[in-house]
Formats: sequence, C-alpha cells, structure tokens
Amino acid sequence: MTETHKTQASPSRRALIGWGGAGLALGAAAAGGAAAMARTGDDMDPAAAETGGAVEFHGAHQAGIATPVQDRLHFAAFDVKTDDREQFVHMLKDWTAAARRMTAGKAVGEGAYGGLAEAPPDDTGEALGLKPSRLTLTIGFGPSLFDRFGLADRRPEALVDLPRFPGDNLDRSRTGGDLCVQACADDPQVAVHAIRNLARIGFGKVAIRWSQLGFGKTSSTTPGAQTPRNLMGFKDGTRNIAGTETDRLRKFVWVGEEDGPDWMTGGSYLVARRIRMNIETWDRASLQEQEDVFGRDKREGAPVGKAKEHDEPFLKAMKPDAHVRLAHPDSNNGITILRRGYSFTDGTDGLGRLDAGLFFLAYQRDVRKGFIPLQRNLAAHDALNEYIQHVGSAVFAIPPGVRDSGDWWGRTLFSKGA
Amino acid sequence: MTETHKTQASPSRRALIGWGGAGLALGAAAAGGAAAMARTGDDMDPAAAETGGAVEFHGAHQAGIATPVQDRLHFAAFDVKTDDREQFVHMLKDWTAAARRMTAGKAVGEGAYGGLAEAPPDDTGEALGLKPSRLTLTIGFGPSLFDRFGLADRRPEALVDLPRFPGDNLDRSRTGGDLCVQACADDPQVAVHAIRNLARIGFGKVAIRWSQLGFGKTSSTTPGAQTPRNLMGFKDGTRNIAGTETDRLRKFVWVGEEDGPDWMTGGSYLVARRIRMNIETWDRASLQEQEDVFGRDKREGAPVGKAKEHDEPFLKAMKPDAHVRLAHPDSNNGITILRRGYSFTDGTDGLGRLDAGLFFLAYQRDVRKGFIPLQRNLAAHDALNEYIQHVGSAVFAIPPGVRDSGDWWGRTLFSKGA
Ligand code: HEM
Ligand code: HEM
Repeated sequence: MTETHKTQASPSRRALIGWGGAGLALGAAAAGGAAAMARTGDDMDPAAAETGGAVEFHGAHQAGIATPVQDRLHFAAFDVKTDDREQFVHMLKDWTAAARRMTAGKAVGEGAYGGLAEAPPDDTGEALGLKPSRLTLTIGFGPSLFDRFGLADRRPEALVDLPRFPGDNLDRSRTGGDLCVQACADDPQVAVHAIRNLARIGFGKVAIRWSQLGFGKTSSTTPGAQTPRNLMGFKDGTRNIAGTETDRLRKFVWVGEEDGPDWMTGGSYLVARRIRMNIETWDRASLQEQEDVFGRDKREGAPVGKAKEHDEPFLKAMKPDAHVRLAHPDSNNGITILRRGYSFTDGTDGLGRLDAGLFFLAYQRDVRKGFIPLQRNLAAHDALNEYIQHVGSAVFAIPPGVRDSGDWWGRTLFSKGA
Repeated sequence: MTETHKTQASPSRRALIGWGGAGLALGAAAAGGAAAMARTGDDMDPAAAETGGAVEFHGAHQAGIATPVQDRLHFAAFDVKTDDREQFVHMLKDWTAAARRMTAGKAVGEGAYGGLAEAPPDDTGEALGLKPSRLTLTIGFGPSLFDRFGLADRRPEALVDLPRFPGDNLDRSRTGGDLCVQACADDPQVAVHAIRNLARIGFGKVAIRWSQLGFGKTSSTTPGAQTPRNLMGFKDGTRNIAGTETDRLRKFVWVGEEDGPDWMTGGSYLVARRIRMNIETWDRASLQEQEDVFGRDKREGAPVGKAKEHDEPFLKAMKPDAHVRLAHPDSNNGITILRRGYSFTDGTDGLGRLDAGLFFLAYQRDVRKGFIPLQRNLAAHDALNEYIQHVGSAVFAIPPGVRDSGDWWGRTLFSKGA
C-alpha cells in the first residue's frame, strides 16, 4: 500500500445475499443503467470515480485521513457498555468485517447467517443498490477507553485530555466518548447506513453518545479544483496537507516508530470540535470586517495584499488578530495539522437562530504539538472568536490501518503479541 | 409554461457582482473546468442536468411540487414578527427577487446596492461558485397567518387546522408556522444557503420557528430509474403522482378555479409531518414482520404475491393492517396525494437512539379530501404505527406560481385587485 488510499472502480452496492436466495442480479443491472459508471484503471472517468468508487479499506494507515475529502460526514462517538474485554474484542472484529464489506459497497452479512424470514436481516437495507460512494470508516479510541479492560498502561502519552480553552462553552452531551467512528462518503445515505449498522452490531456493548452529520465539498456540483466554502462564505482548506504529500504526512500526521507506543505506529490523533457560528451576527458584519477577520478576501480567497488564493500569505500585512495570521505555522513554531472538517446545519435553536457551523476535525501526530498549542493561541487572540463558540469537543487515538483480511480494528492495542 | 418545470442549462452560480468590481470571470472559469457540465436544449447530458441545471422559477404553479425530486431538502417554518402589512408585503417582494436569482444560480443582490466594503455583503457567499443544483423554493402560508394583516376572510376553507390523530406526540417546537419555505436542491449547501439568505432578508419581520434538513434520492449515486429507499430499507415512492401526469396533477394536486378561493387557483396544500422511526426496534424485527408491515418485499419492493416493484398491488393478499393496503386509493375512496418526503437523521437523543425518520411532505388539492381522511385510517390501523411516531406537524396553503418577472410570492393573496 502507498500512503494514500486509491479509489477503486466498483459496481453498485451489492444486493443483500440471503434475501430471496441466489446471488442477485439487481446490483449489476442497476449499475448498467447508471448515467456515469466508474471504470477500472486509468480509463476511469474522474467524475464517476469521485462519487461512485470504492476506497481501499486495508493499508498501513486507516483510510479517511489522507483520502481526498468526501462530500458528506456522519461522525459518531460511542460509550462502552460492557466490562467484558473478550466481548468487546469480538465486537471490534465484527465491526471490522462489516466495515470491510460496506466500504466495498456490499451489505453487512454474507448470507451465511441471516436471510431467513424469521430473523432480522443482517443489513438494514437502505444502502442497497447505492454505489460505494467512496465510503471510508475510521475508528478512534478516546482517553476514557483506557480506564477499562486493563488498558491503563497502554494509553499513549500523546492522548492527553484536552484542557479547557478560554471561550469554551462545551455541551457535555456533545463531548467525549470512549470510541469514535468517522464515516465519510459522497452520499449521506451511505454514511448514515454505515454508522447505523455498526451501532446495531454493537448493541448492548456500545451505545452512541453523540453523533454529527456534516456536509462540505460537493463533488457533484463543485467544479473539481475549487476550494469549498464554509458557512461564513469563505474558501476553507486552501492551505492544508494534501493526501499526496507523503513527507508532510509523515512529519505532521502519522505516528512514527520513534514516537511510541508501538501499537500506534502508523496511526494518528484526532481532535473533533463542534464550533457553532453566530451566523446572524456574522451576516450583519461588513465585508471589510469579514475579510479582516480572516486576513483573506472573500471572493477569491487571496491573502491580504495578494491576488490569488494560492499565493503565499504575507502575514504582516494582516491585522494582528486575523485568523490566518494566528493559525499559520510561522506564528506557531511550525505547527501544522491536517484539517478535515465539515459544515453542519442542525435546524434552529429555541431563539430562531440557525444551529450551524463547522464540525472541525484535525489529524496530527501529537495533540500536544498540534491542536493544543495552536488552539491556545487562537482562543486567546483570534478575531474570529467574536463570531464562533466551541460547543463540543473530543480527542481520539486513531490506530494504524487494518493490514489485510485477517486483521481487525484495534488488534495492535488488544493483542498480547502485537 | 407547461405543468412541470423544465430543467434549464445554466453555468456555475455567478460570482457576487460588487465584490471586486467588474463582472467576474470566476463563474465562467469554474464552469469550464467542471467534469460534467449542463448544456443547452436536447443536447443536455442527463446526469449533468440532474445535478447542475436550473429549474425555471416562473410558471402557473410553483416549482418544487411537480418538479422531479431533488436530492436534498432544507425546509423552514417561520413566525411573523411584524404587524405592518406593507412591511410584510415588501419582504415578500424582496424574497421573490432573491428566490428568482438564487434558483437561477445567482447570488442575492445585483451590485446596485451592497458590494461596498463598509456594508455587509448582499449575499452570505457560501454558494458562490456552486451550480444552481436544480434549486426550487416553494412558499406556503399557514393557518395562523390569516389571523394577521386583516386576512381572516381570505383564509381558504380547505386550509383547516389538522385534527389530533391517535398516536400523535407532537413537539410544539417542531409544529406549525405562519409561513414556510421548502428549499430543494441537489446540493445541501445550495438549499441551506437559500433558506439562510431568506431568513436574513426577513430579519425583524419573520423568524425561523423550526427547520428540517432532509436527504433522499441521490442522483449522483442512485442509478437513474431506481426508487430510493427510506431508512427502514424499503423502496419509497413506487406508487406516487409523477410530475408528468398532467391529468392526475389537475385532479389531485392543483387547486382548480371551481374550488376557490380565487387567489389559490393553481396552488396546492402541503402537509408536513416529522415522523420519527424507532430504528432500533425496527432493526430487531424479522424480515417477515418487516415485509408484512408494508405489504411489499424488501429487496425488490414488489407487492405481496407479485414479482416486480411496479406490478399492480393485490390488496387482499396483504395483511389487513399492511401500510400499503391501508394507504392505497382503493381502501380510501380513491384518495390520492403527491408524496415528496425526505429522510432525516438529526443525531442522537438522550438515550443513544438515532433521531431519524421520514420528513413526510404531501401535496394535495384539498387537505380534507387528502391527508386528513387518509391519516385517520392509517393512525387507527396501520401496522407501521408500532415503529413510528409523528412528532411534528404543519399545514400550509401553497399559492400559485409567480408568473413573470413583475410578479411576486403572495400577490394573489395580498393585492386588492387580484
Ligand atoms: C468556525 C471556526 C473556523 C473557521 C470558520 C475557520 C476558517 C478558516 C479559513 C477561511 C481559513 C483560510 C483558508 C485556508 O487556508 O484553509 C483558515 C485557515 C486555517 N485555520 Fe481555520 N477556521 C476555524 C477554526 C480553526 C481552528 C479551531 C483551528 C485550529 C485550532 C484552525 C486552524 C487553521 C489553520 C492551521 C489554517 C491555515 C493557516 C495557514 O497556513 O495559512 N481553524 N481557517
Ligand atoms: C415513516 C412513515 C412512513 C413510511 C416509512 C412509509 C413508507 C411507505 C412505503 C415503503 C410505501 C410503499 C412504496 C410506495 O408505493 O411508495 C408507502 C406507500 C404509501 N404511503 Fe407511506 N410511509 C409512511 C407514512 C405515510 C403517511 C403518513 C401517509 C399518508 C397519510 C402515507 C401514504 C402512503 C401512500 C398513499 C402510499 C401508496 C399506496 C399505494 O398506492 O400503493 N405514508 N409508504
């Protein structure tokens, strides 16, 4: 495997084997009728690949980090409900098998069990006939997991509890979690289906603590190379680590052998923050104020004084409290994180204001050298703080990738020999 | 105009005129780079048209009813906050102008006002560079609107308050509303942008009471002709009124001259119900039980005893309490409605259960001869009731279409001469 996960051509999500007996022709038939079909190899139509293909589940790293960002997110944090380590490990194996199938566009379950009229179907069915939609499933272990199952001495030093930052207004019901699964796909139904089926498999062993739907880049509608805009109307993601930058990924994102613990080699650390925007206040701010806040212009996304979005920012031309100036590596001893956030809109609060904002997701090699010092700086000085509020927070250790069909999520943590 | 709204070819959502001066090349440049572009006329690529095109805003009927269903929904119910009729009418005109522009893929505002650095931008900007994405905006007037502005004697008889149905468990904060706007588009960011900008224009005159995001058919991933599946895993929408069925639309959906009041001719009535599914209970029901509940098989969607989804249902072969049997016109003196619902997933409730279900939207010529008697029947007998709960409800009069560039939403209701 290379550092990044290739998009593979794949037919429609296969029919549930076991419903109606023999391997069904539905998947193939539906696929034949699709307007744009993913094809194999170099010959692949980029548009089709972007929305239809399967992303390889196996690899040195989990998919969903360096993978080109999909359109939609369903993120779930789980609480563990069992004290039985074996039962929990068994669930992780079942999850892995299900994740392997779902990311390949197949239904949960082989037909070996289930498929009987008297039994609940193995798969809940709502993704039947849909393409893999570049689904990735990425698992993470929260600090509180290590209070269980005799794992205390395996907790990575880098997996610190996040400190309280100035301005934090965290909702406990959207904070923390023993486990997380990040499901990204180009089709929301595919992402929602995946989380739901994992929750179902985990019934009695884990329960969803909170979850978040997100949308963002829209490959079906955003012309390819364009940076998507966040709900403040600004291009977001201009300066970031791309999935193809092997060196920077190694330097800033993947846990190296030298970092320890061993079981985390090839993994990463994820910080999730639900950041609400005061949309109504923002919408009444002048264009000048909005551009000052970020240090970039709204239309093009160019840094202050520059013409083009991808021109190198000249930080001293920006106001001292501009978000980009404060977040830039040059203002933070080189700190660089991989951002992979999504916009959210969760209806309206009791006061008629949109409950909308950015579900911030950042991957890094060490939270103590990534999010924490960076956010300390931002929380203290950022002009953006007038328009946002951090209302949810979590941190997770992201174990390395599942290597092959015999491997499973968490093996390096739970296996004695590993 | 014909009964249905044609999808028009259109370039990328245009840049905000007024940002940076002259008409910008961004839209055109971005459009040129798009993998799949909508083209004009018969030559149009169906896949591109489905995700990129613009739906005509003007017509005898509002778009968004007979229009082929788009992938995403943002629905908002508003409360009126002003007693000044002129101010309210002014807002409706502003809304119409904004809706006309946004559905054509343009930003709110002409550059004639706004665009100054000292002023807030006319448009919030997050849809800049996105295609029209088949956006439709459909306005409706709730019963409570007619208590205001001296409209009492203009309230249609058919706009009754919905009765309480057995099993209803309505959340007041998700029920009712003086006004509604249904925004449907193939891109969620475009739908969210539209509602947000209308709310912004309405600031001080209206406030969002509740809103709902939905997803459903996914044209980018669902092969064209396939019926999308709901979150219970069943194909939903098999038997419905298609936008091309002019006769059935006239018979069951559009308000006719003979129905009255005059101002509603060409309009319709909308019932919205937020129906939560007890996902966890459903997922533990056997396949047999699930299929009995609907009277159709899960894989193919065929009616009991038939082979194919579109075979004519034979009602007597179904259990007496099967949803399809009870909802079928033959069990309801011919009652037929146009269903246009979306799936929703709004995170998790306090008990770790998914807050997910169907945001049911039904259009009809008269609610008293459509939803009310049908739902009476279902609420009393439907086997599905064990797995669902109606938690939100609203009803709206949907005025006729905006005829041309001089016309505006609500003119037939608010103008003396009309
Ligand atoms: C709602 C909250 C936020 C919004 C709307 C936001 C928006 C933006 C925008 C528009 C940019 C410029 C375009 C780009 O380079 O991607 C940017 C850059 C950046 N942001 Fe944020 N951001 C938010 C929160 C955060 C947080 C919490 C962090 C980290 C603690 C962060 C870290 C960064 C970094 C590292 C950059 C790139 C700076 C550079 O290298 O030029 N942002 N953000
Ligand atoms: C969560 C709630 C509901 C679910 C999951 C659901 C699901 C379904 C499904 C799977 C079908 C069969 C496929 C089709 O013909 O589209 C169907 C048919 C239908 N449903 Fe529902 N439905 C729900 C609520 C309602 C409600 C509240 C009404 C009206 C009051 C309704 C009216 C109908 C009608 C009229 C049909 C077509 C019957 C026929 O002509 O064969 N449904 N529904």
